[in-house]
Amino acid sequence: MSKYWSPLTASLEPYVPGEQPKDKKYIKLNTNENPYPPSPLAIAAMTDAINEDLRLYPDPNCDVLVQTLAQHAGLSPKQVFVGNGSDEILAFAFASFFDPGKPVLFPDVTYSFYKVYSKFYGITPKLIPLDDQFNINVEQYTGDHGGIIIPNPNAPTAMPLLLEDVEQLLKNNADQVVIIDEAYVDFGAESAVTLVNSYSNLLVIQTLSKSRSLAGLRVGYAFGSEELIEGLNRTKNSFNSYTIDRVALAGAVAAIEDQAYFREMTAKVVATRERVAETLESLGFIVTPSKANFLFISHPSFAAKQLFEQLREQGVLVRYFASPRIDNFLRVSIGTDGEMDVFLQLVKQLTH
Amino acid sequence: MSKYWSPLTASLEPYVPGEQPKDKKYIKLNTNENPYPPSPLAIAAMTDAINEDLRLYPDPNCDVLVQTLAQHAGLSPKQVFVGNGSDEILAFAFASFFDPGKPVLFPDVTYSFYKVYSKFYGITPKLIPLDDQFNINVEQYTGDHGGIIIPNPNAPTAMPLLLEDVEQLLKNNADQVVIIDEAYVDFGAESAVTLVNSYSNLLVIQTLSKSRSLAGLRVGYAFGSEELIEGLNRTKNSFNSYTIDRVALAGAVAAIEDQAYFREMTAKVVATRERVAETLESLGFIVTPSKANFLFISHPSFAAKQLFEQLREQGVLVRYFASPRIDNFLRVSIGTDGEMDVFLQLVKQLTH
Repeated sequence: MSKYWSPLTASLEPYVPGEQPKDKKYIKLNTNENPYPPSPLAIAAMTDAINEDLRLYPDPNCDVLVQTLAQHAGLSPKQVFVGNGSDEILAFAFASFFDPGKPVLFPDVTYSFYKVYSKFYGITPKLIPLDDQFNINVEQYTGDHGGIIIPNPNAPTAMPLLLEDVEQLLKNNADQVVIIDEAYVDFGAESAVTLVNSYSNLLVIQTLSKSRSLAGLRVGYAFGSEELIEGLNRTKNSFNSYTIDRVALAGAVAAIEDQAYFREMTAKVVATRERVAETLESLGFIVTPSKANFLFISHPSFAAKQLFEQLREQGVLVRYFASPRIDNFLRVSIGTDGEMDVFLQLVKQLTH
Repeated sequence: MSKYWSPLTASLEPYVPGEQPKDKKYIKLNTNENPYPPSPLAIAAMTDAINEDLRLYPDPNCDVLVQTLAQHAGLSPKQVFVGNGSDEILAFAFASFFDPGKPVLFPDVTYSFYKVYSKFYGITPKLIPLDDQFNINVEQYTGDHGGIIIPNPNAPTAMPLLLEDVEQLLKNNADQVVIIDEAYVDFGAESAVTLVNSYSNLLVIQTLSKSRSLAGLRVGYAFGSEELIEGLNRTKNSFNSYTIDRVALAGAVAAIEDQAYFREMTAKVVATRERVAETLESLGFIVTPSKANFLFISHPSFAAKQLFEQLREQGVLVRYFASPRIDNFLRVSIGTDGEMDVFLQLVKQLTH
């Protein structure tokens, strides 16, 4: 605590990212990174962008990237926003659409940054409990509130929402903004992008970090009605006009354009996920039905915290959350087949 | 206006960046970019960073860059913060140190984003007038207030503050944070970094955009007491934990390390500035005593707005601000000697 901190900063409860230890080489299954490299076309485009033009500001409006995303989504450029990672877009969206005078609804078990944003903007979250199987019941998202945010698939449960449930949410809450955080959507869930033209209260947020293997580049994007996108731009231009650098802009355009590579890599991750899930179930684990690039698992006889620590000792990092309802679960990112074989072998030893 | 915007977003008055027209090739003297390329060592480091590791998140704490900056500034890593351009650091600093309950002091003529941040955080700015020669009188920065921010050199006036004046500000306002925004300091003004160890209320913000020719990379940094840096980190980690991508981190480290190149390029810009200032004075212009990489000029007989438009027609972009007190001035970035010769030739024709 410092006498120089504003009351806001003194009150914050900042987010804690997954650990990035430097003490030795780990098999990293703890931050949901993609095990495969970015598209070779993206690598080439970024290499081309390393030149003397870096002395010049980037395009603050990110026109070329916005147009590329619009074209691939079948939307107009005015329905697209770009940010420095989807976390930055979430931060702008909380400011733009959620009025501190009313509670914002999100699941009790979900991405832990939502509570942090709420605190930052003085918003009171109203947590809607998942059911015993971690399902979201969209009928519970009603009443006098200031907006809704739900990840699809949810994190860390990995479980998807059906498109008809998203549509029901939008219909039931036509006067509030509904944000669908689709960071993990490309691994098997249904995107709500197809609903953007029909519902002006829908904002869909995606990222290059997971399915495009570019967590190191920091690019996220959002699709929504023109009025929502204009709101995001008003907020952004009151905070930082030049959020995306020239190299990231070039790499992002190429990554979006290389759909063939994207489909191939996501299919590989999905195939590995299905195989690992099946093996874990055969070892007695409860495995939630994942449509993400990670699994959420629990063993009836072995404590998650202990397994987490044992795996870490053996050089495999997974994520453990000491949070209510999920403190006997582990979140395990899908690595290469070789990495997952090491993980499965260890788990087999530790649970026998 | 949209019914979905929060009251905050509806009330914002966003920043308008300098124009980046795409209709034809201009001599760009309007956004204070450096006319010389980035360090070859920075180019090489960025090229090396374009690899498969981009699938992984960057270091959220930017440890290597923080250590490099600390070493070059003679400070400890806990006295250094890194952001996605100095604008992002300014946005975090307004949130971290300026209490909306009290006015924040800054010059009436200064970087226009300060008013925008104030609006974003519900802070009331108290504008302290520059004197008739655009000097800052630090004795006027007193009273019951919530903090002070001043650029050194000031923008767009280009005029520096003496280090003894900065120290006076710090002494006179020991209970409030004083931010010195040193975006342009490397072109001849005195940095307040040397005061960081003596004044725990001082935050110094710098950037790679101007003196390191890396506006396209989006990296800024700040030096201050450990408690101020901790405050910035609390705010950052309530907003976006991974603000700097892997390529930018690599390029920034190399750019800071290449001090020889940095000194050579800033000296070239300074030499051109002095020559151009002299020529403009010989043409009858008032030229403020600049220590920045731009000039702030006015002609007693020719209206700035008209000159701005005429120069634009002839393919030379400069910056014109339709703001009180400075609406007969132009801000002219220092380009290469060749670019400035074209500019001077045109100005000579237009004012004769």
